[in-house]
Amino acid sequence: MDKLIINAAITGMVPTRKDSPHVPISVEEIVADVRRCRNAGASIVHLHARDESGEPTYRLDVYQQILRGVRDVSPDIILCVSTSGRVFKSFEERSEALDCTGPAPEMASLTLGSMNFPKTESVNSPSMIRSLAKAMYERRIVPEWECFEIGMVDYARYLVDHDLLEPPFYCNILLGSLGTLSATVFNLDAAVRALPPDVTWAAAGIGRFQFRVNSWAIMMGGHVRVGLEDNLWFDDDRTVPASNARLIDRVVKVAGGAGREIASPDEAREMIGLPARARVGTPAS
Amino acid sequence: MDKLIINAAITGMVPTRKDSPHVPISVEEIVADVRRCRNAGASIVHLHARDESGEPTYRLDVYQQILRGVRDVSPDIILCVSTSGRVFKSFEERSEALDCTGPAPEMASLTLGSMNFPKTESVNSPSMIRSLAKAMYERRIVPEWECFEIGMVDYARYLVDHDLLEPPFYCNILLGSLGTLSATVFNLDAAVRALPPDVTWAAAGIGRFQFRVNSWAIMMGGHVRVGLEDNLWFDDDRTVPASNARLIDRVVKVAGGAGREIASPDEAREMIGLPARARVGTPAS
Repeated sequence: MDKLIINAAITGMVPTRKDSPHVPISVEEIVADVRRCRNAGASIVHLHARDESGEPTYRLDVYQQILRGVRDVSPDIILCVSTSGRVFKSFEERSEALDCTGPAPEMASLTLGSMNFPKTESVNSPSMIRSLAKAMYERRIVPEWECFEIGMVDYARYLVDHDLLEPPFYCNILLGSLGTLSATVFNLDAAVRALPPDVTWAAAGIGRFQFRVNSWAIMMGGHVRVGLEDNLWFDDDRTVPASNARLIDRVVKVAGGAGREIASPDEAREMIGLPARARVGTPAS
Repeated sequence: MDKLIINAAITGMVPTRKDSPHVPISVEEIVADVRRCRNAGASIVHLHARDESGEPTYRLDVYQQILRGVRDVSPDIILCVSTSGRVFKSFEERSEALDCTGPAPEMASLTLGSMNFPKTESVNSPSMIRSLAKAMYERRIVPEWECFEIGMVDYARYLVDHDLLEPPFYCNILLGSLGTLSATVFNLDAAVRALPPDVTWAAAGIGRFQFRVNSWAIMMGGHVRVGLEDNLWFDDDRTVPASNARLIDRVVKVAGGAGREIASPDEAREMIGLPARARVGTPAS
């Protein structure tokens, strides 16, 4: 099987220091944690920004600090930013991080439908999806599709068929978030079969489903998204707080058992079809 | 197999007279069309109200006129009202029709998640779902679940397991609406398998998928939702405008070919587990 691409979702919009001693919140914490994740085997880092008080922010200046800091400690990891609508609703807010230039993000999240999280809705209207995709393509940023339902995968196929999504294609399939598709092998297999051709896919499990969904994906030839954004605990009984690097370590061990090597960031770029690093630009600092 | 329960979705929020010569808009048109649908074989009527200008309305007085008129021409058809959030967003608006009393609705729609329609989002937050369900149970109204994704069916199972949905259970599975689960036999089968126990389920196809999805459901032992709310055309080439009664006729023919008799409204009440008609009350007019 192909080498395994590990996408580290290290912070997210929700976890606070109270929820986890290990979730990186400040720019410095995020940068330090990315270094650990890269050493552990991550080739993509999925970044959310927080402001000085630890609250989610869409601000370009914070994202730019994070991207620059990460590039300083890791010259090669693939930089992916969030366009989440979980807190910020307007196109202008959600797309602001796409304007970072020193360095620019190489990928950005694009959730392919509206849905519910356990306690709130997540609205990604058809026009928002198209506007965000257009903004990404104008900046040569590759969308990181996020699909929480098979119908979102079906919608990806529609967008591809109508040239509203352009290659290369990378898709995270997220299972086990209450309100959307549950975490079963059947559902993962069904979602993967629904994908259009030539998509590099990764699977994520929310909460206690993270490790099993990652393991299924590894055995199925897919890739993984892993990290504290989706899961704060190392064990099902929630006694051992997880860290991003330790979660990645566990995935690497499973991959080793399955005979899959870990892709470097440059190998991941080639597998996904991202521009090679020379094209991406170097740190501005 | 069981007798077939036909749920007639006759108007919806979207079609106008310009879209279809046959869509019933005014109270009088709706009442007259329900009589035709009942004669054709419908045992449930899924009602949306329009105001004097033909625009969707949530107003109790309009719903009450419709329910009274329908009960006058059809003493037995099962009365189901919409709580759609497609146009009206607040709980007060969406739940207003539940307060009809002369006669009261026996069922009301409850969409079990947020999603996208082709051009806009449809937001049904977890708290809205719970509030609408509570309002229904307080009035002894049975929710008509609407599921456009397998994850919505998974969420129904969660709500049942946590006693937030109470028996009897009736579920419409809607396939082929762009932005949500596509219309395939695999997807219908997967959605049905995901249902909790003891659910009476019906399937609907949106647009050109209506007839095939209805046919699959008939052959699988499920029931159907059919009508102009979901599909305006009788043929795939969109040359013959459909009418509700003619769409029902076609479903009845397929059922006949499959050896399934058509359930009367009272038989449908018993199959679903709705209160018998004596309990429901009689027309106030």
